[in-house]
Parts: sequence; structure tokens; C-alpha cells
Amino acid sequence: MSGAAETWLTGHEPQALKTLKRFCRIPSISADPAYAASVREAAGFVASLLYDAGFPEVSIEETGGSPAVLAEWGGLPDAPTVLVYGHYDVQPPDPLGAWTSPPFEPTVRDDRLYARGVSDDKGPLLIPILVAKAYRETGERPPVNLKFLVEGEEESGSPNFEPTVARLKDRLAADLVLSADGAMWRADLPSVTVASRGLLGLDVRLTGAAKDLHSGRHGGSAPNPVRALVAMLASLHDADGNVLVEGFADGATPPDPAILAAIRAARFDPAAYLAEIGAPVPEPLPTGEALLERQWLHPTLEFNGVSGGYAGAGSKTVIPAEASAKITCRLVAGQEPDAVFAAIRRHLEGATPPGYHLAVERHGPGSVAFALDPASRGLAIAEEVLTDVLGAKPLRVAMGATIPIGAVFKRHLGTDAVFFSFSTADEDYHAPNEFFRLASFRTGLKAWVRMLEKLAAEARPTARRPGGS
Amino acid sequence: MSGAAETWLTGHEPQALKTLKRFCRIPSISADPAYAASVREAAGFVASLLYDAGFPEVSIEETGGSPAVLAEWGGLPDAPTVLVYGHYDVQPPDPLGAWTSPPFEPTVRDDRLYARGVSDDKGPLLIPILVAKAYRETGERPPVNLKFLVEGEEESGSPNFEPTVARLKDRLAADLVLSADGAMWRADLPSVTVASRGLLGLDVRLTGAAKDLHSGRHGGSAPNPVRALVAMLASLHDADGNVLVEGFADGATPPDPAILAAIRAARFDPAAYLAEIGAPVPEPLPTGEALLERQWLHPTLEFNGVSGGYAGAGSKTVIPAEASAKITCRLVAGQEPDAVFAAIRRHLEGATPPGYHLAVERHGPGSVAFALDPASRGLAIAEEVLTDVLGAKPLRVAMGATIPIGAVFKRHLGTDAVFFSFSTADEDYHAPNEFFRLASFRTGLKAWVRMLEKLAAEARPTARRPGGS
Repeated sequence: MSGAAETWLTGHEPQALKTLKRFCRIPSISADPAYAASVREAAGFVASLLYDAGFPEVSIEETGGSPAVLAEWGGLPDAPTVLVYGHYDVQPPDPLGAWTSPPFEPTVRDDRLYARGVSDDKGPLLIPILVAKAYRETGERPPVNLKFLVEGEEESGSPNFEPTVARLKDRLAADLVLSADGAMWRADLPSVTVASRGLLGLDVRLTGAAKDLHSGRHGGSAPNPVRALVAMLASLHDADGNVLVEGFADGATPPDPAILAAIRAARFDPAAYLAEIGAPVPEPLPTGEALLERQWLHPTLEFNGVSGGYAGAGSKTVIPAEASAKITCRLVAGQEPDAVFAAIRRHLEGATPPGYHLAVERHGPGSVAFALDPASRGLAIAEEVLTDVLGAKPLRVAMGATIPIGAVFKRHLGTDAVFFSFSTADEDYHAPNEFFRLASFRTGLKAWVRMLEKLAAEARPTARRPGGS
Repeated sequence: MSGAAETWLTGHEPQALKTLKRFCRIPSISADPAYAASVREAAGFVASLLYDAGFPEVSIEETGGSPAVLAEWGGLPDAPTVLVYGHYDVQPPDPLGAWTSPPFEPTVRDDRLYARGVSDDKGPLLIPILVAKAYRETGERPPVNLKFLVEGEEESGSPNFEPTVARLKDRLAADLVLSADGAMWRADLPSVTVASRGLLGLDVRLTGAAKDLHSGRHGGSAPNPVRALVAMLASLHDADGNVLVEGFADGATPPDPAILAAIRAARFDPAAYLAEIGAPVPEPLPTGEALLERQWLHPTLEFNGVSGGYAGAGSKTVIPAEASAKITCRLVAGQEPDAVFAAIRRHLEGATPPGYHLAVERHGPGSVAFALDPASRGLAIAEEVLTDVLGAKPLRVAMGATIPIGAVFKRHLGTDAVFFSFSTADEDYHAPNEFFRLASFRTGLKAWVRMLEKLAAEARPTARRPGGS
């Protein structure tokens, strides 16, 4: 069976590319209300692709924001059920002038397709849809029970995603989630992401006098919230950037030795990294291992913004009435957002000097770190397939960013999510000139066929369900 | 003579008020280019008042910005020459909605005239013009050689004032400057301002990566300029707000014992001050003496603004590429702006961690502190007159804000400037509902007559010139 589907896909590459281009022509920018109609058009496009691929049940689900697309193709009681996750919305294309070809006019150059959203996530999402279609076109059906949940708000922080999963949990029930989103780390190193950090956001506001004051007339006798706030913020870290908040790391578990081994294996080049982000090279230069450990395995307390008083041209002799900071923390396994928030608030309260008023406001519940069970069968099978198609065993890596879907599916469905995407983190997916390697498109089609086959074969002799540990 | 002029002024109060109202109807807002024509109209109004008062030479002097008005009434070779300083421009009236009566429709309530600019500086400036007119109307001329320099950019930072004084210095030559600008400190305490702090402004900008980065993907491995900057800024002060910069206070002279005595005599109420500015009351409450010493006699390094990264609603998971701060320092006697700037830059350079780029930019040359020679005869005579008209010997006080004119006249004319204004610092002159006490208007008319008489009398027997020490 696998042979027929793969052969069909190989023979229909031009059509597949054409479909991907049509998908990428829809400016489904979820962050901009002006594109609401295009977002709905993209949802309809995905639904029609799934219907065309043979899914007997396809529905567009209202979420309160952009709709989600749900598809189900059951009917194999002895086969496992796989839920595919992806998203059809895209990042805004600004700055437009920096694009070589227009963001919504997909263009092939050097075996890459350039378009907004092609790598994140329209190309990777189209792969499993085309794989389902290949089975149908060759007179078969996919070898597992297959479901899709495709959301339209991933680039806007997925505000309605968790409630939608909770509401639809019976229809979404599966043995394994395969995410078509979540790029591979590097083009030159096969990898699979098995852990990500959690998130907690908060705002800090410090108030002195009731109004801005003249810094000449009042300087020295009036409170200056900028002066007080910078001292309070400075007390949150030591000189090396380690967080000094008591209780901040309570409960944090030691780093996974497998990830530490992956960091050693990755041979991360610190100078190349600093050149990539355009930062001055510090003396002494940290090791690549130290940088990756800080990026993947250490918690952070990061200032996303600070403001207070005058920021325009020239001078304004003012003592501002207030000063603010925006903070997000990335959390490691074992850290609880509630406890972290309480620890930071306590620290700031203790650091507030007399004569100022402090307000600390939390942004939502936050999310815990995500780690896939290292013994997950789904993960092991994915690694076998990736070894097969990429020619080398993939490294199990972590990432610094937060992937909320892993924790959401685990919480509401009890199901592991394995990242099985064929985009790569260097494909400028939040920047101008986003592209998707067409070689990855071809590899991905092959890999998804083999993945579904292996999951079916795994279940066949023993009826053992993958995904459990 | 004095008697006749005073009597004439007393008999013409309604006309004087009418003239002041006409002056206040002109919206001479120098900061807003939309009011350029009104600014010129106000210059013409002042020139015509001076001509009407009898000045034989009146000219409108171009400065590159708003014009200045220059008037001269010489002809008394044995009498001293007094140069009167004032300004005809006003602050913007925003927020308009907060005014009880419109800012450019002068309205009397409770023996106060409410209008934008009435206290700062149209009322106090009109007083010496009316005094000159009173001499003329009573068949005399002022008993001293009298000059006026009235600028139109005081509320915009006087960008063209010093070059204008330098250019016109021969025509401005005088034995004493009397400033009609510079409010008295408190309505309940006669005072004369004899010292003010200097000023130095600078911008600090710290850069990390070349662009904003995702705080999840890069948090921990990328430089965060906000984190580094708050630590650098925090290192500039101790917990009590004292400046920790090495060399910052080099050359500073000890506080003038007379000012310290004035601080003790002033019985400054710290709780009332904090209530006035709307600041939370610290525990322990500082003494009033400590607050006034900090406001008048200590140098400051004040943060006027801090900015970097995201300041909007909600969260943005960004590591900003740069962070900035705006600083102004108030300097005490003996501190040199050049040396203070060098000390701060050296401190910040030393505090910059590896992996960041620092830029420090200075705003103009700054200005040294101003202190009137305590032995100035002009000051002594002013004190006698104030004792006479106010019924109590005025306190010699300092102020935290910078008064550049004192240093400018001293530098270019070699002349002391004595503040002889009859507005009061509580008259909301940079806020809505600015007013001028009509009692102060009447007192001021009387005081200026007596001041000119005393200056003339002082010179008569011995030809001794006031203003020297």
C-alpha cells in the first residue's frame, strides 16, 4: 500500500506544488482584523482539501475567533487513531518592502517556494492532507484512523485553542497527536523536538507623585519611579543573568540527561550564533554548550519592555509620575506559574522603597514546560521514520520557546504530541522572504506515508496502541 | 517724585488692569508654531507699551526665533543704569478642559486675574513698564537710566537668548539687572531667590542584538539591553538616592550657610509637600529641612525617561535590540558640566557588561549653578524695599530649577541679576487656571517705584554704582 501512495505522490508533485501555491495566495493573517474574510477563506480551503482527500466528516468549528477545521476518517477499529495538528493562519508580512517577491504571490527560486506562511505552516500542513489523498487516489484509505484539527489563530497566541480542544475532546480522542507545526531546529542536523519551556507574563508598575513634576524644582525631594524601578529590576538578576528571586526555581527538576547529551552532540557554534543575531561578541566568549543550556534548559526572567517618562527627541526636564516594565518568564520542568508569579511579586514588594506604590499584574494563567515522555512509542516510531528518510538518527532536542499545544493535548485528551514537521527554523517564518524547501516537501510526503504505515503495522500484530509509555 | 508716581499708579489701577487684560488676550505661545503671528503681535504690544511709557528708543530685535524687544531711556550720566528682564511669551494652555474660564479671556475672581501667562510673566513684566509710564505722566522721567530686554522664547528654553545678549551687549550694558521674571517661593513668606542649580542633560543608549528577538527562542542566550541597562542605571545611586558616580561632585563647594539658615527658618512641612505633589508618604518621613536641602543644595542625577522594547497593552515576547534612558543633572556651585558629563560617561562605560554597545550623547553645553554675590548692593537694596512693602525682611532662598539668565548676564555683561518679581510659585503658571494675585500687582507697582528711587538715591551722594560687591 505504502508503495502505491508514495508512487502516486511522486508522480503528482507538480499538482501538489500548485495546490500549495493556491493555499499561499490566501492572506490569512489572523492578527489583523482587516483580513478576517481571508482567514475564513483559508478555513474553507482547508476543509475542501480534506473533503477532497476523502475524509467523510469535515466541519468548520466556530471558536469565538477564527474558526478551526475538524476532519475525521475512522472505521478501523483495530488500528490506532492519529490526530494531526496544524494551523492555516499566517504572520503579518511587514515590512513589505523587504520582500524579494510579494508575500502572497508564491514564487519558486532555487528549489524553494517563497511566500508568507509557506513554511509556517501551510507547506507542512498540506503534506499529511496530500498523503491521505494519495491513499484515496490509489484505491485505498489511510491505514490508521485519521483526524485533523487545524486552527486559525496560532499566530495570534491561540486565545481560543484550549477551550476548543476541551469542548471537542470526545471527537478529538486519539492515541497519538502528530503536529505538522513546529520546525526542525537546523537544516544540517536531523532533530526532533521533545521539550519546550513554559511561560508566565506579568506587568510591573511603580508610581511616585500623582503627576509629572519639574525635575529642577522637585529634583531631590520628589520620588522618581524610574530610579526606584531600575533598582528593583536590577535586583532580579545577578551579573551573569541568573535569576535571584527566592523561590523562583522551586520544584524545578534537573535537566534531562538526554537533552544535555544532545547539547554536547549539537556542537553549537557561539560565534556563529552571535553573528546571526547581530550581537557584539563578549569577552570571554561563552561556550556553545553554555549558550544552548541557557536557551533550552534554564528558566528566564526576561524584560520585554521598560517605559516611563519622556522618550522623544531632546530633553524634557520631568520627573515621571510612574514607570513600568513588562516581564515574561520561560519556565523549566517542575516550575509552577502560580508559584513563580508569587515569588516575583513577593520579591518586588520587598524591593519597593518607601514612598512608592507598586502594582503587579499577571497576564493569564501561563503554561508549564512541556516534555514528551522519552519512552513514548510514537516518538520512537517517528525517530525510525526520520532516520529512514533523512539518513541519520535525529537528535532529541529541546527549544527555548513555549509550545502550548503539547501541554493542551496532554491535559484534555491525555495524549502525547510528537512534532513531525518538515519546515526548518531558518526558513524566516516570522520575517520577510519566508520560504519552504521543496526538498523538505518531498521528504515530508514520503515520511508521513511511512509514519502512518509504521503506526498501523505496530498496532496490527498485538493491537498495542502507540503513544503510551 | 516717588510720591507723585505712586499716587498716579494708585489712581489708575482700573486702567492698569485693563492693559494687563489686553496683554493676556494675546495667545503668545512660543512653543507652538501655529501661534507665531500672536507671538509677533505680543512683541509689538510690548514695544508700543514701552514707547507709550516714554522710552525714546524702542526696537524689535530679530533673534532667529521669536523677536526680543529692546528699550532704552538714558540721559542721566550720574545715575545708575538698570536693565529690566522679562518675557512676553506664555506656556501652552493644555489641557483646555481643565480651565474654569478660557485661558485667553482674562477673568477676575476673588481679587485674582485668571489667564494664561498672567503670572508668568505678563503681570510682573507690566509692573515696571507702568512705573516708567507713571513718571512720565506725572511730568518726570524715571530716576535711573532704564533699559528693557523682553524676550519671546523663555517658555521654549530660550534657544536664542544667550547669542542675542552677546550680540547686543554694548546696548545692554548696565550696573544691575532686575528680573521681572522668577516667582517668589511662597505667598506666606517674603523671599528673594539668590541661587539656583545648574543643568546638564544626556541620553544613554545600550544596544544588544541587531534586531528584536523572540524571547522564547533566544531567552537566556541573547543579550537583553533592558536587563543590562537597568543594572547600569541602578549603579548610579545608592538606596537613599545619593549619586555614586566617582568624580560627580568634584569641585562642589559647601552649601552657603545663609541658605542653610534660610532652610531652617523656612519651617518646610514635608507632609504638606508630599500631599501637594500627591506622593505616598514614606516611613520614616524625612524632615522638611532634609527635603529642602535636597531640592536646593544637593546635585541630582535624575532619570527623565527610560524606554526599550514593548510598552503597549498585553504581552509581547520580545528581547529588545536596544534600551535608552534620558538623564538631567542639577548641579551645585563648583560643579562643571564638562567634568560631570565625563564622570557619568566613565561610570557607564565601566558598568557596561561584555556583549553590549553603549552610546552616551550630551544635550548642549549645560549650565553651571548660579549664585548671586551675597554682598551685592543691588540685592541689599531690593531686600530693603521688600521689607518695606511686605512688612517683613525677605528670606534669601535658593531654588532647585535652573535660571540661565543670571549666568548669561553675568557672563556677557559682567552684571548681577536680582530677581524682583511679584508672582508667586503657587500661581499655577505651567498648569491650567494660571492666576496672578492683584494684591501682588499693587504691591509690585509700589515696590518698583521705591526700588528705582533707592537705586538713584544710593548713587547720588557718592556716585557709587550699585551691583558691585
